[in-house]
Amino acid sequence: MGRRTLTTSQYADEIRSGNRFVLSQAITLIESTLISNQNLAQTIISSLLAYTGNSLRLGITGVPGVGKSTFIDQLGMILIQEGCRVAVLSVDPSSQQSKGSILGDKTRMQQLSQQSAAYIRPSATGNYLGGVAQQTREAILLCEAAGYDIIIIETVGVGQSETMVRHMTDFFLLLMISGAGDELQGMKRGIMEMADAIAINKADGSNKKAAQMAKKNYEHALHLFPPVPGKSSPEVVTCSALHNQGLHEIWSHIKKFVTATKASGYFQQQRQQQQQSWMYELIQQQLSQHFFRQEGVQKILSQIEKEVLHGKITAREGAERLIKCYRS
Amino acid sequence: MGRRTLTTSQYADEIRSGNRFVLSQAITLIESTLISNQNLAQTIISSLLAYTGNSLRLGITGVPGVGKSTFIDQLGMILIQEGCRVAVLSVDPSSQQSKGSILGDKTRMQQLSQQSAAYIRPSATGNYLGGVAQQTREAILLCEAAGYDIIIIETVGVGQSETMVRHMTDFFLLLMISGAGDELQGMKRGIMEMADAIAINKADGSNKKAAQMAKKNYEHALHLFPPVPGKSSPEVVTCSALHNQGLHEIWSHIKKFVTATKASGYFQQQRQQQQQSWMYELIQQQLSQHFFRQEGVQKILSQIEKEVLHGKITAREGAERLIKCYRS
Repeated sequence: MGRRTLTTSQYADEIRSGNRFVLSQAITLIESTLISNQNLAQTIISSLLAYTGNSLRLGITGVPGVGKSTFIDQLGMILIQEGCRVAVLSVDPSSQQSKGSILGDKTRMQQLSQQSAAYIRPSATGNYLGGVAQQTREAILLCEAAGYDIIIIETVGVGQSETMVRHMTDFFLLLMISGAGDELQGMKRGIMEMADAIAINKADGSNKKAAQMAKKNYEHALHLFPPVPGKSSPEVVTCSALHNQGLHEIWSHIKKFVTATKASGYFQQQRQQQQQSWMYELIQQQLSQHFFRQEGVQKILSQIEKEVLHGKITAREGAERLIKCYRS
Repeated sequence: MGRRTLTTSQYADEIRSGNRFVLSQAITLIESTLISNQNLAQTIISSLLAYTGNSLRLGITGVPGVGKSTFIDQLGMILIQEGCRVAVLSVDPSSQQSKGSILGDKTRMQQLSQQSAAYIRPSATGNYLGGVAQQTREAILLCEAAGYDIIIIETVGVGQSETMVRHMTDFFLLLMISGAGDELQGMKRGIMEMADAIAINKADGSNKKAAQMAKKNYEHALHLFPPVPGKSSPEVVTCSALHNQGLHEIWSHIKKFVTATKASGYFQQQRQQQQQSWMYELIQQQLSQHFFRQEGVQKILSQIEKEVLHGKITAREGAERLIKCYRS
């Protein structure tokens, strides 16, 4: 870090006044592996809690190549034109090595990155999903305290990061493109069911017809899933982020969704559930970490795993032996 | 229990020799809340481990009314005609009070219950899912040691029991009926993606056409999911258990699946993964139980939960306070 000259309340004040440089510093503290930095980050967050929770948390996912950057760039501009302040956080636990795919440079969102009402943070890579989830959730809180009305959390639709992002957002948008029938190829099973809406991007030029077909297919598939009480069935729309077509409609749809779910109580309920499960998740994580990091457990773990895999002992026996070792 | 006059090795011998009465007794030991009974059950299972794992574990799910009993009754008869010995275990964590829906009497499977090559055990109800899962997995092992070639584990397609059953079976069959468009109504989201095959039952009489339509719909929906390496895409078939139509085809399909996945390695791999995750699950369960049963934790839990829900403290803070209390 090196520049930790600010006090907790200075951090808090600067963040609240919209100082993006200090906001970035604070998010870096969250992501730091130094306990002292993490502790400072926690104090900052705690002192800002009263100013959090008022944004719309918008999850956007889609496999690489679907046009996420362009989509977010255009959507972000629409939001800013409506007077919103927009923060974009990226989540990509898979790319810790390459820093590739969705992360890296702000040039991905050329218009948005030049706006004073926008904050783009390519962050939250890490070596385990739980850690990344935690960092992102806390970065959301800081962005909210900094006055951003819409927090876009983007992730790639592979691996488990969409589930993670789904569980920290109010609205989850799945971006797709039409393809050769197997549109979901390479995408995690179950992701469609998490979506509040599906947008088929690149519905332009010669692609238009295929996109319409894909729309019908997805509508059909979604129709088979039961509705969730308190919110409307997910809509499937086509759009072209490149030509800025259909994005206003998507934003209208999101706004309608928010109004309706706030009226039905679903919105608040989902938030509360997210908070609660987050706490339980954290407890589980801590218990697990403590367990598997213990020297005694580490010593015998692989042997016991082998015995369970080969049916020499039952899973229960294996678990009991490990726990006995842990407790002694 | 009252009749615990047998020694461990007597239990084991009787089970192996096909004594159904002793098998039932041993499963009752597994389900007992008495630690001494549970310990005895564990010793019995351990001594029988060498004789387990050779069955085909077949999961069957579907909402009430779909015709599961009739289906299993007929399918079981086909299996017995082929020389198999068949055990049927029922899982229904939801019905602990009523003992209703899928459990209770053997009269549900009138043909099968009269066969000496069949064992029907309406069991595994309990007040928490983890416990039921454990009991069922262990009952499977005992049935295998007793020489049953096919273990059918049936569950209702509501709640979380299908996920549980999916994780302990080699092949997972989803039974459905055609309806008014919303065929999945009331069924847990994501269940379709767990299926190795979907059978649309009651495809008879005036229902035939609707069943064919439903088949097309599901085929279409399934087509959108990516294939799983090492196994073929799920098939959708129609059948009428009542008129014994289509069940031979389903059984052929299952046999083909088993042959193919054994050749590709998927079968063994899935089993090993199931074993391993079971052990990790058990560890998590135990750690969790120990944590949440601790007096200190119990005292402050609801207060902290409230504070987290109302945004007074972060989830992380709540988790940390609870863990601190637990460790002190």
